[in-house]
Amino acid sequence: MNLQRLERLSAHLATAKVDAVALVPGPNLFYLTGLSFHLMERPVVAIFPRSGDPVIILPELEIGKLQQDEVGLRPFPYAEDEASRTAAFQAAARSLKTLQPRLAVEYRRMRLIELDLLEAAFQKVERANGDPLLYNLRACKDERELEAMREAVRIAEQAIRNAMPRLRAGVTEREFAAEIMLQSIRAGSDVELPFAPIVAFGPNSALPHAVPTERKLAHDELVLLDWGATCRGYASDVTRTYVAGEIDGRLRMAFEAVRAANEAGRQAIGPGVSAEQVDRAARRVIREAGFGLQFVHRTGHGLGLEAHEEPYIREGNAEPLLPGMTFTVEPGVYLHGQGGIRIEDDVCVTEQGAEVLTSLPRGLQQVEA
Amino acid sequence: MNLQRLERLSAHLATAKVDAVALVPGPNLFYLTGLSFHLMERPVVAIFPRSGDPVIILPELEIGKLQQDEVGLRPFPYAEDEASRTAAFQAAARSLKTLQPRLAVEYRRMRLIELDLLEAAFQKVERANGDPLLYNLRACKDERELEAMREAVRIAEQAIRNAMPRLRAGVTEREFAAEIMLQSIRAGSDVELPFAPIVAFGPNSALPHAVPTERKLAHDELVLLDWGATCRGYASDVTRTYVAGEIDGRLRMAFEAVRAANEAGRQAIGPGVSAEQVDRAARRVIREAGFGLQFVHRTGHGLGLEAHEEPYIREGNAEPLLPGMTFTVEPGVYLHGQGGIRIEDDVCVTEQGAEVLTSLPRGLQQVEA
Repeated sequence: MNLQRLERLSAHLATAKVDAVALVPGPNLFYLTGLSFHLMERPVVAIFPRSGDPVIILPELEIGKLQQDEVGLRPFPYAEDEASRTAAFQAAARSLKTLQPRLAVEYRRMRLIELDLLEAAFQKVERANGDPLLYNLRACKDERELEAMREAVRIAEQAIRNAMPRLRAGVTEREFAAEIMLQSIRAGSDVELPFAPIVAFGPNSALPHAVPTERKLAHDELVLLDWGATCRGYASDVTRTYVAGEIDGRLRMAFEAVRAANEAGRQAIGPGVSAEQVDRAARRVIREAGFGLQFVHRTGHGLGLEAHEEPYIREGNAEPLLPGMTFTVEPGVYLHGQGGIRIEDDVCVTEQGAEVLTSLPRGLQQVEA
Repeated sequence: MNLQRLERLSAHLATAKVDAVALVPGPNLFYLTGLSFHLMERPVVAIFPRSGDPVIILPELEIGKLQQDEVGLRPFPYAEDEASRTAAFQAAARSLKTLQPRLAVEYRRMRLIELDLLEAAFQKVERANGDPLLYNLRACKDERELEAMREAVRIAEQAIRNAMPRLRAGVTEREFAAEIMLQSIRAGSDVELPFAPIVAFGPNSALPHAVPTERKLAHDELVLLDWGATCRGYASDVTRTYVAGEIDGRLRMAFEAVRAANEAGRQAIGPGVSAEQVDRAARRVIREAGFGLQFVHRTGHGLGLEAHEEPYIREGNAEPLLPGMTFTVEPGVYLHGQGGIRIEDDVCVTEQGAEVLTSLPRGLQQVEA
C-alpha cells in the first residue's frame, strides 16, 4: 500500500519541480513508511528522490526500528560522535543523482539542526517548502484511514462517558484532565494522545487554549472539555461545554449561538464547497447573535495523523473541499472573566455532503456539581 | 526569580556577542517566563534583546496566557490571516535597536516556518546557534528545581509500584504501558508525561527505543520498563529490567555487567569529573565482561525541563560536571533476537559527589508471569 503512496509522492515531486523531499520524524514520514521516531537531539532524516531509492540517516541505536519500514529505505546509520554523523549525511547525499538538489523540506517541522546538516552534506541546496505537496498527498483519507478516525472518535466518546461520574463539585481541572487521560487509554487509545485534554471551569473557559489548573468545580459555572484519542496514529478532537447549575442569560445566549453556528457549519459542508464558506456559515450565526467579536478563532482545522493539519476552515481559504477530507467544526464564543463556550465535531467530506464522525449530544447539559 | 534569570541571560548574550535571542515554545521560554505554549501551525516567538524589553509575537487567541508571564513581555498579537502575522513580526522586529541583528536561535527547536518569518521581518539576520548559551543558563539546577525533580522521581517510582500487580503473563506491552501512564498521573504527575513509557518483553527489549506492541508477556523472558513522570515541568526518567521465570546464562551475565556498570558510572560522578569519564567508567565494566559491542549508546543524558538535554554522558564530552547538574546513568546491553537489559538512574552532582535521586532496587527481580 505504501508503495502506491511513494508513486503518488514521486508524481507530486515532478509537478513541484523538486529533485527530492527530505522528511524528519512525524506524520509525513509515518504516512509514507510506517516508521515512528521522535524528534530528538539525534536527528533522523529520510530523503525521497523523485526517482531512485529513498534513504534514511539515523542513529545506530534506532536501526532496529527499520523492521517496521514498509518501503525499503536504504539506511545510513551514525554513531555517537559528530564526525560519524556528518559522514552519514554526506554518504546519503552522494546517493542522490545531484549534489545541488532542489530539495523540498517540511517548513512546519524541520529544525535548524537538520537543515544545517543537510546544507553541509550537499554542495548547494535550493530549498523549497514541501508542506503544500505533502499536505496534498495526505489530504483525502482512504477507507482504512477513515476507519481509524471513526475508531478514534468512538474511543474519545466512550472515554468521556466513563469519566463523567467524576466531574463533581470540588474536583480540580487537573484531576479531571487526568481522569480523561486514564479513560482514553482504557477505552483503547494509542498510548500517545493527540494532545493533553483541556478542562476549564467558569472564567477559565474563556481562554481558548486553557491549561488545566488547581481550580475546583463550583456551582453555577460552565465546564469546557476539549479532548481526543488516537487510533493507529489517527486523531480525534472533540469539545463539549456543560453547565453546573445556573448561568446568566448572556452566557445562555452565547451557548445557543455557538450551538446553532456549529450546526450551520456542519450543514454547509459538501464537495466543492470552499473552506471559507464553511467558516462564513458558522460565523454568520454568531455575528447575528451579537457575539462576532468574541469568536476569536477560525471555525476549524484539518484532522488526521496530526491533531491540527490542513485544511484550515477560515476566511481566506478558498480551497474547495474534496471527498475524504477530514476536519473539525468548532465555533466558540469567549466572554472575558465570565466563561467560554465551544462545541467541536469531527467531520469527513463525502460525495453527497458530510459524514459527522462525532455523536455526543450538543445541547446544554447539566453536570451534578 | 525569573528577573534574575533574565539578567543572567543578558550577560550570556553579551559574552556570545549576539544582539538578541529568539525563542519558540518549549523549555527555554518556560524557564525564562513561566509560559507554556505548543509548537503548532500558528508560530509563537519571543525575542529577548541584550538590553531593552523582551517581546512576544503570538496568535490573538493565545493572549490570555500572558497572565502567566512572569517577566512582562510586550505582546505583538496577530489574527488568522497571513498579512496580520507578517505585520506582527515586522512590528516586533522594529522594537529592537537594530534591523540587522546578530540573532541567536534554538537550533534543536526552531523550525523553518519561524526562521523564515524572522528573516523576512528584519533587513538582515546573522543567525547564531543559541543552544549552547541557553544550555549554560539552565545547566545547574537550583534548589527549587531539584525539589521538583526529586518529586518527579518519587511519582515515577510510586507509579511503577502501583502498576506492578498488573504485570502478569498474558498482559500486552501496550496494556501495561497504559497502566504505567494511568498510575503516573494518579501518583501526581503533570498531565503531560515526559515521554510515552517503553514496555518491551523478551526479544523486543533488544530495541533500545522499542514502541509497545500487542506482544503478550510469556514465561522465561526479560521485561524492560523505561518510564518517567513530570512535576512542575521537570522530568524523571527511570529504567528497570525484570525477569519472568528463567533466562539463559548469557543474558544473566549481561544483566550482571549492566548492573555493575550502572554502579561504576554512578560512583565516578563528582564535581570536576568530566562527562566522558563517567561514560568510560560504566563502559569499561561492560567491555571487560565481553559485551562492549552490544552497549550501543552513550551512558546517559541530561535531565530537567527536557527528558533529554545536556550534558550528554559520552566519549568526547570533556566538559567538567558541576554541582546542580542532573542527568541519567543508563548503561545497556542488547542481544539481538534474545533481549536487552538497561538500568537507568537519575542523579544530581553535588559539592561532594552525587545525589542519586532514584531508589528502586536494581538487582534482577522476578515478576510473576
